[in-house]
Amino acid sequence: MTKLYAPNLHVALVHHPVLNKNNDIIASAVTNLDLHDIARAAKTYGVKSFYVVTPLKDQTALVAKVISHWTNGAGSVYNPKRRQALELIRVQETLEAVIEDIRNNSDHDKKPRTVVTSARDNHVNLSFSGFYELLKAGDPYLLVLGTAWGLSESIIVGADYVLESVKGNTKYNHLSVRSAAAIILDRVLGKID
Amino acid sequence: MTKLYAPNLHVALVHHPVLNKNNDIIASAVTNLDLHDIARAAKTYGVKSFYVVTPLKDQTALVAKVISHWTNGAGSVYNPKRRQALELIRVQETLEAVIEDIRNNSDHDKKPRTVVTSARDNHVNLSFSGFYELLKAGDPYLLVLGTAWGLSESIIVGADYVLESVKGNTKYNHLSVRSAAAIILDRVLGKID
Repeated sequence: MTKLYAPNLHVALVHHPVLNKNNDIIASAVTNLDLHDIARAAKTYGVKSFYVVTPLKDQTALVAKVISHWTNGAGSVYNPKRRQALELIRVQETLEAVIEDIRNNSDHDKKPRTVVTSARDNHVNLSFSGFYELLKAGDPYLLVLGTAWGLSESIIVGADYVLESVKGNTKYNHLSVRSAAAIILDRVLGKID
Repeated sequence: MTKLYAPNLHVALVHHPVLNKNNDIIASAVTNLDLHDIARAAKTYGVKSFYVVTPLKDQTALVAKVISHWTNGAGSVYNPKRRQALELIRVQETLEAVIEDIRNNSDHDKKPRTVVTSARDNHVNLSFSGFYELLKAGDPYLLVLGTAWGLSESIIVGADYVLESVKGNTKYNHLSVRSAAAIILDRVLGKID
């Protein structure tokens, strides 16, 4: 397995529809450090764009403000490396709009295949190395991450692939989405051997 | 390589002495999500304790308040899984005090060997798989992570080992300490093969 330097990979962080702890469908609030951490991990692993998905207007405005501070504002001078990462961020209201945006910006008008993540093990049909093999072929893929208690069932059953979950070496599997995103990108793209 | 289910591993997150962007030695502020994310990753990978190192009294009080909320307060009822992770956190003023604390709580009065991380490549003398092999022998190890712009040179040269840095598949290497901690634990302890 050699390194894939320019994967045709996009990442989406979904804030609606996601679950709360009672399995109700909610729209979660955007967390500032999700933007920073996942953008930095995306930049580290050569991801093409990082979509923040929220239908809430005030949250869209918040994300725009954070991006602007670090890409044009005082933050871009203070820390140019941060700018390079946050430039990857796009905001869309729905996952469908993300897919359409990627298609519109692709060379051959191709829709990305969607790969969802779930801390649960139902429906899994793609391993980390399997995902790497798919990416090698060059077609666009969209890795979809959920906030709060995870993606709604509708998103999971509507996806092209369900990626295996990250397991450590204990029965505890409650990583933050920031940590899970970093580990998934590393497992799929970071290996040298 | 099989999984190591109960590594004799401790993690320390250092807020002093660390560097700022001008290479001055500073004491950084504690970030709430560092506590949550690294505690959750530590719990996922069977780490024995997670030390937060800060000499600042107000920061020590802040950490104590966060831990208390999630281990005894309203948070422990709202989210018991979070309690299990945050219970791993200890606070100490210096790295020396951490080492002494681990020795005092060990079965055979053994000091842990220290393994430091650095985004730079100087002094590296331990690979991820090499670290796994050391842990297999059962002696205590302390993985030392830096906040802000990284650990001071004094900590790096004083360590027993300098771990190889996390590289993705690009030249960009500016992961958050939360992401780096997750990836390091996964690379050292999370492999199944």
